[in-house]
Amino acid sequence: MIRTPYLLFLGDAHDQLAAKVAQGIQDWRPENVVGQLRMPGCKADVGAPDMTLEEAWNAGARTLVIGVANRGGVISESWLDVLVEAIGMGYDLASGLHNLLRNEPRLAEAATGSGAALHDVRLPTVSYPIASGARRTGKRCLAVGTDCSVGKMYTGLAMDAEMRNRGLKSTFRPTGQTGILITGHGVPLDAVVADFMSGAVEWLTPDNDPDHWDHIEGQGSLWHLSFSGVTMALIHGGQPDALILAHEPTRTHLRGLPDHALPSLEALRDMALPLARIANPDCVVAGISINTKALDDEAAARLCAEVEDRMGLPTTDPYRHGAGKLVDALEAIG
Amino acid sequence: MIRTPYLLFLGDAHDQLAAKVAQGIQDWRPENVVGQLRMPGCKADVGAPDMTLEEAWNAGARTLVIGVANRGGVISESWLDVLVEAIGMGYDLASGLHNLLRNEPRLAEAATGSGAALHDVRLPTVSYPIASGARRTGKRCLAVGTDCSVGKMYTGLAMDAEMRNRGLKSTFRPTGQTGILITGHGVPLDAVVADFMSGAVEWLTPDNDPDHWDHIEGQGSLWHLSFSGVTMALIHGGQPDALILAHEPTRTHLRGLPDHALPSLEALRDMALPLARIANPDCVVAGISINTKALDDEAAARLCAEVEDRMGLPTTDPYRHGAGKLVDALEAIG
Repeated sequence: MIRTPYLLFLGDAHDQLAAKVAQGIQDWRPENVVGQLRMPGCKADVGAPDMTLEEAWNAGARTLVIGVANRGGVISESWLDVLVEAIGMGYDLASGLHNLLRNEPRLAEAATGSGAALHDVRLPTVSYPIASGARRTGKRCLAVGTDCSVGKMYTGLAMDAEMRNRGLKSTFRPTGQTGILITGHGVPLDAVVADFMSGAVEWLTPDNDPDHWDHIEGQGSLWHLSFSGVTMALIHGGQPDALILAHEPTRTHLRGLPDHALPSLEALRDMALPLARIANPDCVVAGISINTKALDDEAAARLCAEVEDRMGLPTTDPYRHGAGKLVDALEAIG
Repeated sequence: MIRTPYLLFLGDAHDQLAAKVAQGIQDWRPENVVGQLRMPGCKADVGAPDMTLEEAWNAGARTLVIGVANRGGVISESWLDVLVEAIGMGYDLASGLHNLLRNEPRLAEAATGSGAALHDVRLPTVSYPIASGARRTGKRCLAVGTDCSVGKMYTGLAMDAEMRNRGLKSTFRPTGQTGILITGHGVPLDAVVADFMSGAVEWLTPDNDPDHWDHIEGQGSLWHLSFSGVTMALIHGGQPDALILAHEPTRTHLRGLPDHALPSLEALRDMALPLARIANPDCVVAGISINTKALDDEAAARLCAEVEDRMGLPTTDPYRHGAGKLVDALEAIG
């Protein structure tokens, strides 16, 4: 667990997109955010109050979260000065960068001195068990995509937020570094050793109240040759009661695989559901999430209506239009 | 690569089954074996000449392979004396034990002194790439099982042996520790980090002659909730041209999962083939391998005939009856 609340470190972000991790935290867990720290030249702003390390500490912040992607994966000297100062004041650090905090000698030394935790959320910190396959109490929902990076995380976050708004029992269960930084816990599934992937998902989604829903962050795609094994482990370790099909309509080929076309939503349904029913015979496809970011309002609404009609399943862009339809579908399951 | 030929270390094996790794090497790669080393009390014999360390060294052995499973995973003191002596003479060591050679202080120290390699084949030694999904030249065959441990490795080894007997181009590609010790190379897939599983299989089965067959060692099962992600990575990283369905007819439930029944061969075919065709649209199911070890001769022959008739696919126990039928099917593919 990462100590909250956070001060979001935006560094010298060269554009808004570079701060998308910080933006995700601010969008989905504003209650975890005290403020943002921007260095000279920073071109991003996630809408949190600008604060110094000291102001944020006095406002309660206990972890400085690296909410920015740096060029080339290097943690620059100018960043290091700020991070070392933060450690000296008592902050923990958290990062999803490929370059690990613990491998920066200045940070490691400062942390040894202060007792600060350096959370490199790309690395597992738990010895996950081998999956038992035993059924668990509580309900689970998993988004499966026609491709990687089609909005599965945002789908889960939006459904979780909608359920909590309705007073329902719900938890978002992150399986990637951005999700882990947003909520402060989770499993970095792509870094887990093969034999323990499915067990890590079981560990992440334990027994719960019969009317509690876990929204498990999806990864990869059954069609994505590089990462389909991770998707499979989510389907079998998660034992979902409900699948959401996730799609981005303007994608011309699988991400990073120019020779491979995306499947249709029908093909995704017909492949994912039988696989899911191996783990949970009661699993259903509950709805469809379309990432309409590249479309204008009219085209987005028209596409969702067309897909809903064609597939006979509640269809929405949960980020643009809200996750109400999808949550309605889960409520109908029980 | 592990240096060959081997001296097989049987230690004080408490029964024949404890030496099954050594037996596998002797059965499938006798040309890699100079002899066996048995300590007082050893109750196993894999049929290789008994030799001392010195006799085997003079006969050309360069690696002492731990071909025995020890009780409780501990490397006993009596073993260590022999292993240290071997290192001192110039041998490398190779082991698939959970307890790593490198973590035994006496072995690590001796190896530092002599420059010996300590091959712990459960651990990856390569930084595998992320899978590219690009099609590769050459042909590939993968056994997929109704469960774990139904004979997929022996199926691949038997098909490879039969192809080489026929003068065809063929390579067995191990993905587990026993297979790696048998051939001296491979990928310990269950220990590879999730993001790189599929890429590790691509790395293992690179471009080859158009008429060359890789026999990729299968792992897990699409039905086995603990390990199905590994199976998926083999199907998509391997891009097989041919699948062999592997089955053990007396299994009453999935290994280690008492509440989960095995699928039918029909269900396995109908799930595995569409998944394989995502990677390779030309993939076919070429035949069926039945592990009839628990059946008498008549029952074994009858079952294979029944399955062949029912499924319309060449069916055999490749270990008991030879892999000829399965290789015939691959030759028909091209």
